Amino acid sequence: MAGNTYGTLFRLTTFGESHGKAIGGIIDGCPSGIELDMEAIQYELERRKPGQSKIVTQRKEPDTVDFLSGIFEGKTTGTPIGFQIVNTNQKSKDYSHIKDTYRPSHADYTYDKKYGNRDYRGGGRSSARETASRVVAGAIAQQFLKDIKIYSYTSAVGDLVMDTPYQELDFSKIDSNDVRCPDSAFAKAFTEKIKVTKKAGDTVGGVITCVIQNVPVGLGEPVFDKLHAELGKAMLSINAVKGFEYGSGFAGAQMNGSDHNDIFNADGSTKTNLSGGLQGGISNGMDIYFKVAFKPVATIMQKQDTINSDGDVVEMQGKGRHDPCVVPRAVPIVDAMTAIVLADFVLRDKSVRL
Amino acid sequence: MAGNTYGTLFRLTTFGESHGKAIGGIIDGCPSGIELDMEAIQYELERRKPGQSKIVTQRKEPDTVDFLSGIFEGKTTGTPIGFQIVNTNQKSKDYSHIKDTYRPSHADYTYDKKYGNRDYRGGGRSSARETASRVVAGAIAQQFLKDIKIYSYTSAVGDLVMDTPYQELDFSKIDSNDVRCPDSAFAKAFTEKIKVTKKAGDTVGGVITCVIQNVPVGLGEPVFDKLHAELGKAMLSINAVKGFEYGSGFAGAQMNGSDHNDIFNADGSTKTNLSGGLQGGISNGMDIYFKVAFKPVATIMQKQDTINSDGDVVEMQGKGRHDPCVVPRAVPIVDAMTAIVLADFVLRDKSVRL
Amino acid sequence: MAGNTYGTLFRLTTFGESHGKAIGGIIDGCPSGIELDMEAIQYELERRKPGQSKIVTQRKEPDTVDFLSGIFEGKTTGTPIGFQIVNTNQKSKDYSHIKDTYRPSHADYTYDKKYGNRDYRGGGRSSARETASRVVAGAIAQQFLKDIKIYSYTSAVGDLVMDTPYQELDFSKIDSNDVRCPDSAFAKAFTEKIKVTKKAGDTVGGVITCVIQNVPVGLGEPVFDKLHAELGKAMLSINAVKGFEYGSGFAGAQMNGSDHNDIFNADGSTKTNLSGGLQGGISNGMDIYFKVAFKPVATIMQKQDTINSDGDVVEMQGKGRHDPCVVPRAVPIVDAMTAIVLADFVLRDKSVRL
Amino acid sequence: MAGNTYGTLFRLTTFGESHGKAIGGIIDGCPSGIELDMEAIQYELERRKPGQSKIVTQRKEPDTVDFLSGIFEGKTTGTPIGFQIVNTNQKSKDYSHIKDTYRPSHADYTYDKKYGNRDYRGGGRSSARETASRVVAGAIAQQFLKDIKIYSYTSAVGDLVMDTPYQELDFSKIDSNDVRCPDSAFAKAFTEKIKVTKKAGDTVGGVITCVIQNVPVGLGEPVFDKLHAELGKAMLSINAVKGFEYGSGFAGAQMNGSDHNDIFNADGSTKTNLSGGLQGGISNGMDIYFKVAFKPVATIMQKQDTINSDGDVVEMQGKGRHDPCVVPRAVPIVDAMTAIVLADFVLRDKSVRL
Repeated sequence: MAGNTYGTLFRLTTFGESHGKAIGGIIDGCPSGIELDMEAIQYELERRKPGQSKIVTQRKEPDTVDFLSGIFEGKTTGTPIGFQIVNTNQKSKDYSHIKDTYRPSHADYTYDKKYGNRDYRGGGRSSARETASRVVAGAIAQQFLKDIKIYSYTSAVGDLVMDTPYQELDFSKIDSNDVRCPDSAFAKAFTEKIKVTKKAGDTVGGVITCVIQNVPVGLGEPVFDKLHAELGKAMLSINAVKGFEYGSGFAGAQMNGSDHNDIFNADGSTKTNLSGGLQGGISNGMDIYFKVAFKPVATIMQKQDTINSDGDVVEMQGKGRHDPCVVPRAVPIVDAMTAIVLADFVLRDKSVRL
Repeated sequence: MAGNTYGTLFRLTTFGESHGKAIGGIIDGCPSGIELDMEAIQYELERRKPGQSKIVTQRKEPDTVDFLSGIFEGKTTGTPIGFQIVNTNQKSKDYSHIKDTYRPSHADYTYDKKYGNRDYRGGGRSSARETASRVVAGAIAQQFLKDIKIYSYTSAVGDLVMDTPYQELDFSKIDSNDVRCPDSAFAKAFTEKIKVTKKAGDTVGGVITCVIQNVPVGLGEPVFDKLHAELGKAMLSINAVKGFEYGSGFAGAQMNGSDHNDIFNADGSTKTNLSGGLQGGISNGMDIYFKVAFKPVATIMQKQDTINSDGDVVEMQGKGRHDPCVVPRAVPIVDAMTAIVLADFVLRDKSVRL
Repeated sequence: MAGNTYGTLFRLTTFGESHGKAIGGIIDGCPSGIELDMEAIQYELERRKPGQSKIVTQRKEPDTVDFLSGIFEGKTTGTPIGFQIVNTNQKSKDYSHIKDTYRPSHADYTYDKKYGNRDYRGGGRSSARETASRVVAGAIAQQFLKDIKIYSYTSAVGDLVMDTPYQELDFSKIDSNDVRCPDSAFAKAFTEKIKVTKKAGDTVGGVITCVIQNVPVGLGEPVFDKLHAELGKAMLSINAVKGFEYGSGFAGAQMNGSDHNDIFNADGSTKTNLSGGLQGGISNGMDIYFKVAFKPVATIMQKQDTINSDGDVVEMQGKGRHDPCVVPRAVPIVDAMTAIVLADFVLRDKSVRL
Repeated sequence: MAGNTYGTLFRLTTFGESHGKAIGGIIDGCPSGIELDMEAIQYELERRKPGQSKIVTQRKEPDTVDFLSGIFEGKTTGTPIGFQIVNTNQKSKDYSHIKDTYRPSHADYTYDKKYGNRDYRGGGRSSARETASRVVAGAIAQQFLKDIKIYSYTSAVGDLVMDTPYQELDFSKIDSNDVRCPDSAFAKAFTEKIKVTKKAGDTVGGVITCVIQNVPVGLGEPVFDKLHAELGKAMLSINAVKGFEYGSGFAGAQMNGSDHNDIFNADGSTKTNLSGGLQGGISNGMDIYFKVAFKPVATIMQKQDTINSDGDVVEMQGKGRHDPCVVPRAVPIVDAMTAIVLADFVLRDKSVRL
């Protein structure tokens, strides 16, 4: 229960530090007989990869996944899928400037206090590099999910908020721009915002919206493991996430019941969908949608006061190549965690067959 | 994995339907030797109880907890604590008007589709009555947590939002009014808002803020089981919750890193606390705080169209005694789930002793 | 993880001390729509009940199960099944003679050392009374398992060992005698053995054999959760059990491969079944069979030296009504745990439908 | 819950097929700050390695473990320890003779039926090669356990049974011979037995005894997760194991209580130890000891009838290099699983500190 496993039946355990030999994981419980599209898996890694565009970190990592088990003659065998992504630039950096220094709003301080030691080469285990393993597992989960489709996209960067209803968006355009926003006007504005922020040596937060379509009725478990509770946990487990809301969300808290209730059509669908596709934690067949808030990246290219492990106040400034905004690269991570959550619930419910 | 258990080491499993014989649960993993204050446990149940004030449902339930095991000579023994709360008015109601009808924005439809049957006496298992069992477990968890203090309070009702920083509030006044808001002016406005809504046969949503003080540094687990991810899941598992944010939350997504970073003091505390007391999912010793959004209650005293199990459109109107706003009664539930989450993390970390 | 839960998807959590208010449990994950035969459940409790015959303890407990949730209109609803068995004679006994005394080969000493306290009224939580809750859950599991049939019976009492191959036994005769042996000659000898032992104020051990028929091919999980590994754990979790073997067992360790291998018939069945119906932890469609060794009951009606909590050596003698041999009453417990293990594996394998 | 994880807090998940790219695993929950003796880990792998002596398979595998994470500057960091053992001879073998053939008393048939496919290169996932990963994790667990010492040794080969009480054995001599028996006379006889069996193209079973010393009082959890129940499960999860008994075991089932009870000394130790160091599933401070029965290896160098996947009866004969008796190489596996079980229980009990 040390926190490195997600899921009960479709189950991902990850390992690896940002500057160790490799990161990777084990997917246990993936059903047998799935003919894997390896290119589709690698494609999701490319979407998360550093250096993919001008608005993300310029660090270079090939991020090639190497499968070690669980696949035979192109198909899953039902045995655990072990995989690794070798860290190619593990020795290239000089970390002496942060070795004994706790970077503000990073996990350096808390890891050191919890474990009594700290892998000071970058974020170590707390680095978002770990999420590459989630992307591998999510891409496999998506292939298991078949027709259940997941669409994540950037819906806000800083105070620029796109409030277009998702029904009016063309999800096929999500990857048509670097910022992963399906609306080209907003995509342009978001990109510009990130560039200006980067130039100022600063960082900025943002929001990702996710829409899930073709979910069968009855997915999810009641009480503690409501589908939206697991989605919330999965999203909040992603680095830099500060908030999660689904359906009407925080805005729904301001409404009256007479406006908020979703009235049924004769076929069981609903005229509105403020519920966000879930009642009592169980899918009702309507689209599921939610929003995830990301804080601005803590490493900025400006001088800040901080402390070292002796408690001395020291000045530091970010070095190297960091993201001015995590949101563009976090889109495939939200996709991945969503797919993993759904795959787990599909397996948990014996009556749901895809 | 049917979803009725929360926690790994401090572990609550609940049972019971709103109109069955009893609800209750088993707390497994509670350490031995805790001298239980039984009145404090019952007090928390009174805070959640129907009929406690004019702004909540007027249903009458004594909600007296009956412990069946795990306590001997006033102390916990380390064995599972079994308990029940007998449902006293299980037969008093007539449910014929909802037997074959799916109430809008309730879980009637999804339970029926998932399980192929439905306990139509009220919400059955999907009723918020289940949360009384959580309050029992939370009250015991709080006694285990000793000096770690949890303060939840109503911070918004509908579009009335109290934005006073929590540092300026006097938590000892939370229970000084029916709506559980420590600011008397807002308490009055919230109460009035609920009364007006009730008179209109309508319901309204709201927000609860929770502050946790005296958390030792190092609580929480990295990666998937970040402390805030578990808090988020626990909150989202409460009936009617639509959103969760901690620290800077959704507002943080609009900020720049240069403003958002919390600069350290020499003692490891931070000058600001936009992080919300957590870095990398692990407590840093500052206050932890978060907000929980509740939708308006789905049962309204107005006519609505809906469908029955044959797919016919029928008209229905809420009967009986329901809450116009869940927030006042949800405050002890947020307290309880927070205590359960923290107790679990204390047990998961061998180095943390209270 | 305090050890009071068995199973992953068909999941039993129990509570209760031998002389507390009640014992009971929660079954989570039982599929919905099972029309429960309540008499069959109570019948299994009668088979385990004290006072049922002259060769078991003469203690009187009605052991009537009271279901609190999860069943509606005679069928399981898919929600957790909460139940209790009220302890009727909780106050009737005088335990002053054992309050500060550790009984030899009981768990008094280890519980006291582990928990820093001890419920000295009988065995408390370590009493085999807890197994009544398992029998309730097992009876429900058996009804879910439909045609998979489980037959446990007494195959040895002390040094009297029945080595008749199970294929030659008539399982319908198991309950035709008090000792639960389907061979009437051995039943008579076993019964006599127990009576003589009892008269001497002594106790005696024994062995239960269990045979499972009609198991579909493919049940079980590989590596750590092999079906026989889970059966072994489940059996070893029953009070007084000292050993478990399946198929050829310890005798198989003495054999050569050329004699031990089970040669296939054309239809996938095997000519012999030394494997015990399992290969690599997964059922092959042949009968599964195993043996469980029970030690003699520790409470004897003879004087023994022991120590008290101050470390003084004191003399003690068993009082009250105890079993001279647990095996007759343990037969339904072996049945129950077997059914629970199988139900869990059926739910774990999405491809297995009953 | 696909069965490839063992443990709750000290938790091993393994992956890998006998002839895939690599086998390996992730150890999650290993405490931070343990200075690892890497040679001691590799030494345990050498004890399990093929080709180590004349009485084991002559297959050549270097079995070098490669750690990928969780260790920094020689110490565990508290983050997951990922590791792999590359399969060096993955392509060297010709498996055409078993591709469509189910080997008798192997898991070929059950895997094929369960998963709808089969990695026919050797045993695939069902191969005992997987246990190398357990040995790595066990060696680390042993280093965490410090003074708790585990001694496994061969105590029977076929019908040759060494019944010397373990107290009379010198455990330092376990590795002084190829068969891993601390009694040199029996070691010689066992070795001879294996050689003769091998020459006959046959295989033979055996028994391993394990003794655990210096266990603190109070280790283990009651009811379902009794320490001996977990040990039993762990042992039964090892390939080829057919039985487990602890303390008096099956022989205890033949005894009377008056002979079986362990009478206390004033210090809480007992004069005898038929209980095997455990009462109610919790350690009492005495030595824990148990026996594990292994069947003869299924692959024999003799002709046998079997069937192929079309149900045709075909004749087959084992090829290649196989163990005539698994017991010598299984000794370190029993050591390893024992260490993993104990490490898990140490972490589960907050009051136990090493």
